[in-house]
Amino acid sequence: MELHKQIANDLGEIRRKKPLLHHITNFVVMNETANATLCLGALPVMSHAKEEVEEMVRASGALVLNIGTLTPELIDSMVLAGKKANELSIPVILDPVGAGATMLRTEASYRLLNDVKIDVVRGNSAEISILAGQSAEIRGVEAISNQTDPKSITQKLAKERGMVVAITGREDVISDGSKTALVQNGHAMLSAITGTGCMATTAIAAFVAVNKDRFQGTIGGLVAFGLAGEKAAKASKGLPGTFHTKLYDALSQLQASDIITSAKVRIY
Amino acid sequence: MELHKQIANDLGEIRRKKPLLHHITNFVVMNETANATLCLGALPVMSHAKEEVEEMVRASGALVLNIGTLTPELIDSMVLAGKKANELSIPVILDPVGAGATMLRTEASYRLLNDVKIDVVRGNSAEISILAGQSAEIRGVEAISNQTDPKSITQKLAKERGMVVAITGREDVISDGSKTALVQNGHAMLSAITGTGCMATTAIAAFVAVNKDRFQGTIGGLVAFGLAGEKAAKASKGLPGTFHTKLYDALSQLQASDIITSAKVRIY
Amino acid sequence: MELHKQIANDLGEIRRKKPLLHHITNFVVMNETANATLCLGALPVMSHAKEEVEEMVRASGALVLNIGTLTPELIDSMVLAGKKANELSIPVILDPVGAGATMLRTEASYRLLNDVKIDVVRGNSAEISILAGQSAEIRGVEAISNQTDPKSITQKLAKERGMVVAITGREDVISDGSKTALVQNGHAMLSAITGTGCMATTAIAAFVAVNKDRFQGTIGGLVAFGLAGEKAAKASKGLPGTFHTKLYDALSQLQASDIITSAKVRIY
Repeated sequence: MELHKQIANDLGEIRRKKPLLHHITNFVVMNETANATLCLGALPVMSHAKEEVEEMVRASGALVLNIGTLTPELIDSMVLAGKKANELSIPVILDPVGAGATMLRTEASYRLLNDVKIDVVRGNSAEISILAGQSAEIRGVEAISNQTDPKSITQKLAKERGMVVAITGREDVISDGSKTALVQNGHAMLSAITGTGCMATTAIAAFVAVNKDRFQGTIGGLVAFGLAGEKAAKASKGLPGTFHTKLYDALSQLQASDIITSAKVRIY
Repeated sequence: MELHKQIANDLGEIRRKKPLLHHITNFVVMNETANATLCLGALPVMSHAKEEVEEMVRASGALVLNIGTLTPELIDSMVLAGKKANELSIPVILDPVGAGATMLRTEASYRLLNDVKIDVVRGNSAEISILAGQSAEIRGVEAISNQTDPKSITQKLAKERGMVVAITGREDVISDGSKTALVQNGHAMLSAITGTGCMATTAIAAFVAVNKDRFQGTIGGLVAFGLAGEKAAKASKGLPGTFHTKLYDALSQLQASDIITSAKVRIY
Repeated sequence: MELHKQIANDLGEIRRKKPLLHHITNFVVMNETANATLCLGALPVMSHAKEEVEEMVRASGALVLNIGTLTPELIDSMVLAGKKANELSIPVILDPVGAGATMLRTEASYRLLNDVKIDVVRGNSAEISILAGQSAEIRGVEAISNQTDPKSITQKLAKERGMVVAITGREDVISDGSKTALVQNGHAMLSAITGTGCMATTAIAAFVAVNKDRFQGTIGGLVAFGLAGEKAAKASKGLPGTFHTKLYDALSQLQASDIITSAKVRIY
């Protein structure tokens, strides 16, 4: 199937199958990523106690591990849930929020990559550079523009780890180690509110929950989320509070036809 | 007093007395249930450290125990706060989020029912079925349509435990073991955003904080919240982000006259 | 420089320098204060693990310690981060949410004041009265009107502790122990939603991150936040959900000229 049609089809599948997306995530975006999940047509569950994550992940279509507001206890829960997801062939998506900003976050990211088979990792250019063993400048959880070429970094890390890697930013770069895609959907307003990176990760999780091709699923999630961002920006005149509200509206209103006509993807 | 007038009157009492609603709740909806509390006219406090919950609950008009994003530490805090509330005759409202989805949640719900005198429990049909000792299908925290009859389940559990039980869904069923009520206020859009079940529980807490008749208070909370959902839906054309914003607006604008004219309650 | 111009200038500095504001804060307002930070032009990071707070604070322009939803572990993290901030001359802003409501909160506030050099503390009249060793009535986290004179209390505590103290409410009173300011910007709608006190503290942090004069910075933050509240109120007709959305819009749209023309500050 042609890629745009595949993405449009996957969006329909999300809305039909309503996969459960189990999030072990940070306390800043729990509500926001749960709402983004619902707007896309999937079902969210937020659960992080080590006593229940293995049981909760069983019913899930995908597992999101997001290390913002990390504690050692949460890392342990993530490893438990990740291993169980691996056992059950449930895709695991990692969002290494702030990797490089502190040792705790960098080491947690490496531990997750080593102990769990991660299917997709999505981060900003600094976070992904750190995971690829490059130096990078990060202030809090925000990438500072650096010298590294996103294409070579995503390819390198994808090949090394046998997973799909996505750097999101002005353009999104996605690689599975052999193929690399460039997604040009999205809008600068997405950086005017907090949690949109985390929501992009959630969108990827929704798509890989219905598409076994992780490279396509990752592209699909970023196209869909980017298009919703474009629509929300058009409706909100640079106002971030209004944009935040309209972003949920746009996610829920996204149509197959929007994807067919407006997806901007190039594959190399 | 006739029931519609009683509910209208209770809404006025909430706004006059501004009861403090102490929530020990999940991290997904802390902000949202605090705002719902304010919009109804009550005051929220979110506090969960075992070192302070007994002291915090003393000043409260009601205590909400909500087990989403549960950990063993939180259960201990809930039991401490619940026992203190019992001692002081402060009503305790339980929201067993995800009971049945994991052993941790099911056992926590039972422990709370056994160790604390719960005045009202509100959940979806699966959660309440589990507490009533029936099997039920739940995906994450969402009830999957099942065979059980909500009326017989609420009555059974209410009678067994000597408390008010509410199942919310397309219709809300409330029972105190002898009387059973059906509330038909509400709107499908309430399931388009996260946390509306938790907000319904908060609304019940506000009403039982001013009405010693727990059965009436529970009906009142669900009527008020359902009416606000209807108004917000009318103003938001199926858009979930907009609906979320308008839901707070509608809660704060709810008038006694809305309840008199539009409450849809039948008592059996 | 004349004060209005200084505040306008500081707002421009925040937007140019984008200081990182490290928050160790409560779970109710994490998303909301992160968004307020972005709307003002600064960058937020929320991080509370004791394993990383000292490292995270190094890159920060200011550190916010907010004790809502407090646990003993969080207090330890706050002390660690606060001491490191002191070492690096990074300003520390304390929001003693609910001090006086429980022993845990009162003692935590005192411990923070004793173990960390706090640059600015902002609270409601009850919280600040408690820190000044006065009695006060607080219900949950809401000050009950009491007899104390905000001016004398702020001056007393500021002088005693050698820090800037702000009581926010209908009028904001700020003192550094010798000078005292009255800010009359703001709007009653700010008390219709949760977290606006915490956001005011965040606004102070943004301003003191760019102005070494803590007294001026505190005034600047409260003027800017109050003006945004006024604009949002004008655009939202008493509707709290709408007001919440418009508050972010207004923060992001605040102009130097708004401050020059509409700041209402008197210095004694």
